[in-house]
Amino acid sequence: HAQRVSRFGTTVFSEFSALALKHQAVNLGQGFPDFDGPDAIKEAAWKAIQGGVNQYAPGVGARDLRVAIAEHAQRFYGHTVDPDTMVTVTSGATEAILDVILGLVDPGDEVVAFEPFYDSYDANIAFVGATPRYVPLRPPDAGHATWWFDREEVRAAFSPRTRLLILNSPHNPTGKVFTREELEFLGNLCAEHDVKVLADEVYEHIVFAPSRHIRAATVPVLADRTVTVSSAGKSFSLTGWKIGWIIAPPPLRDAVQRAHQFVTFATASPFQAAMAVALRLPDSYFQELTALYTAKRERLLTGLREAGLQAFSPEGSYFILADITGYGFADDVAFCRHLVTEVGVAGIPPSVFYGPEHRHLGQRFARFAFCKTEGVLDEAVRRLREKL
Amino acid sequence: HAQRVSRFGTTVFSEFSALALKHQAVNLGQGFPDFDGPDAIKEAAWKAIQGGVNQYAPGVGARDLRVAIAEHAQRFYGHTVDPDTMVTVTSGATEAILDVILGLVDPGDEVVAFEPFYDSYDANIAFVGATPRYVPLRPPDAGHATWWFDREEVRAAFSPRTRLLILNSPHNPTGKVFTREELEFLGNLCAEHDVKVLADEVYEHIVFAPSRHIRAATVPVLADRTVTVSSAGKSFSLTGWKIGWIIAPPPLRDAVQRAHQFVTFATASPFQAAMAVALRLPDSYFQELTALYTAKRERLLTGLREAGLQAFSPEGSYFILADITGYGFADDVAFCRHLVTEVGVAGIPPSVFYGPEHRHLGQRFARFAFCKTEGVLDEAVRRLREKL
Ligand SMILES: CSCCC(=O)C(=O)O
Ligand SMILES: CSCCC(=O)C(=O)O
Repeated sequence: HAQRVSRFGTTVFSEFSALALKHQAVNLGQGFPDFDGPDAIKEAAWKAIQGGVNQYAPGVGARDLRVAIAEHAQRFYGHTVDPDTMVTVTSGATEAILDVILGLVDPGDEVVAFEPFYDSYDANIAFVGATPRYVPLRPPDAGHATWWFDREEVRAAFSPRTRLLILNSPHNPTGKVFTREELEFLGNLCAEHDVKVLADEVYEHIVFAPSRHIRAATVPVLADRTVTVSSAGKSFSLTGWKIGWIIAPPPLRDAVQRAHQFVTFATASPFQAAMAVALRLPDSYFQELTALYTAKRERLLTGLREAGLQAFSPEGSYFILADITGYGFADDVAFCRHLVTEVGVAGIPPSVFYGPEHRHLGQRFARFAFCKTEGVLDEAVRRLREKL
Repeated sequence: HAQRVSRFGTTVFSEFSALALKHQAVNLGQGFPDFDGPDAIKEAAWKAIQGGVNQYAPGVGARDLRVAIAEHAQRFYGHTVDPDTMVTVTSGATEAILDVILGLVDPGDEVVAFEPFYDSYDANIAFVGATPRYVPLRPPDAGHATWWFDREEVRAAFSPRTRLLILNSPHNPTGKVFTREELEFLGNLCAEHDVKVLADEVYEHIVFAPSRHIRAATVPVLADRTVTVSSAGKSFSLTGWKIGWIIAPPPLRDAVQRAHQFVTFATASPFQAAMAVALRLPDSYFQELTALYTAKRERLLTGLREAGLQAFSPEGSYFILADITGYGFADDVAFCRHLVTEVGVAGIPPSVFYGPEHRHLGQRFARFAFCKTEGVLDEAVRRLREKL
């Protein structure tokens, strides 16, 4: 195989999904809901299939979906988006992230990102021959109510070779929601160094009061340098449909589109039609989603704590990190392997979301997904209380 | 934007699709059927959606689809495929091609391919910092009944840096179907130079008697070095569903999978379920598809000739190349622009499927797709006869 893939074996998601299956574990590993989105969206897909929306969509995406993406951005964030020059529809956010990196980053460039990170960032940076500069997010402590970053560390990560900052908010797996003030600090740094921003906002609709999602692209200093990536999977509980999109100022959209056309060329047409319907659902849909996840977060948080784990309350996303240092395992991977084989609960070891330098920082935690029905969450907690 | 995308503006498909729309031209440009595949496949998708197959599929693809891909390979080609170690499902063949190149080709490597080529090959080779070595296919002439290649030219294109040969059969846009003897010649050359093969066989079910599709991977010298790429779009007239796959010996599948997991991660679940049904359709389905396209080929071929064009009869694929040198245009792009704006028929100028060195060879032709209903083919011919 090529050098660029030599360090990348199987993703941790595939590995732990397989382990969960094998050991009949309750699966709080990979982040997919065990319930589906609204029937109205499914019926819209069927209507499109029956109605003959079954051949190649335009490479940039079906126009009606691009219009719906723009309307949604305006409705929720006052983010004004031209559907014709600022949007590309992709086969999920994972493809969108690759398109951005292929379209904007040259070999030898540097990319700044926070740890822990979604593992495709690291792989995609390697794919294009660029170098990552990682800055660890630090857990809440006496001085910080939430996950935080050291501003001097971020500043030191920037160099004349920095081309891109990757910003994931709400953040997987810490649940951190970046504040406006943090985004402004990062934006000023990017402006100073003429750096573009990839804002991965796939958990935009899973944020818990009093936290509020701020679309990075609406922070003035970020507006003309930010490529927003989002997707339908998490907001509509249909992760398997793989519809994502990028929103960017026209010159950046152009760069990303140039890559996209030679990555997947186009995205499944019937699901594009259905997602246009989804993005136009009334506000009540999104409020109910938040309420649903607020209750699930509470349920798993309480349960994990009752099982003796020190669990951090996330501000957003559907993941909880728990401190596992008290259990006497060598690291998070050993802990999670024990959990899936002996306790019958699958979680994800977050150290895989760190570069080698800071990997030890991730070895203190395990990640649990709460995008699961109540019975599943309760059964996981029961097993943890009994066997951990 | 990054250097690697700087030469790649809009694909010719997007450009001419937009022109066709604008000028209300009969669209024989991009290769998508204007009719849909069987209702049974559509209903299988709806059943999957209703049945809750809506979350992430495994990264390698849903097992039942992998089994169906293996069964199909056995049924049609006696190609024995292990569904667990030799298959990855992708978001269309375009993604599959990128996965292969990312997974197998290092910067500085060379890739041999024939011209004209599907344009994503050239872009993907550039994406990974490799160098293409193109060998032109030559049109039929006094000594050759079909498109052919000069064996010495192919031999000369190989070097110690050659890592991959891309072989597209049935070939878009010439319609050439490579013979067993040609595949053996190429396979021996690859064996001699320890070169892997990407066999793009997306038109595998659109081949006209007496020609027969030969799966490259079943030629003994190619068996352990070939990654087969195919997709559902052309065989089932559902190009917009974007389900593709690769079949490869386990070590090559592993390399490609390592790339795939960080390109799209997974592919739309409900359509994977439906494609498992499609691949298991009885032989009669595939025979009827061949009969349908045999008739369409005849219809457009006759029509183009009646309109005065010297059109080559393809052995496979749903494209016809016609010689346009007699019409006094500077090149194929000028001809096709005239055609779409003045005659009201959209074709594709094939010179975009050549590297700079041999581009002039493509400027003699225009490509027309015949994956269209009879009325559309007839209207295109009517316009050509009247206004060309
Ligand atoms: C394609 S996996 C996407 C991310 C996710 O689901 C997870 O972090 O579990
Ligand atoms: C994604 S375009 C695929 C190829 C094709 O349809 C064409 O050559 O017209």
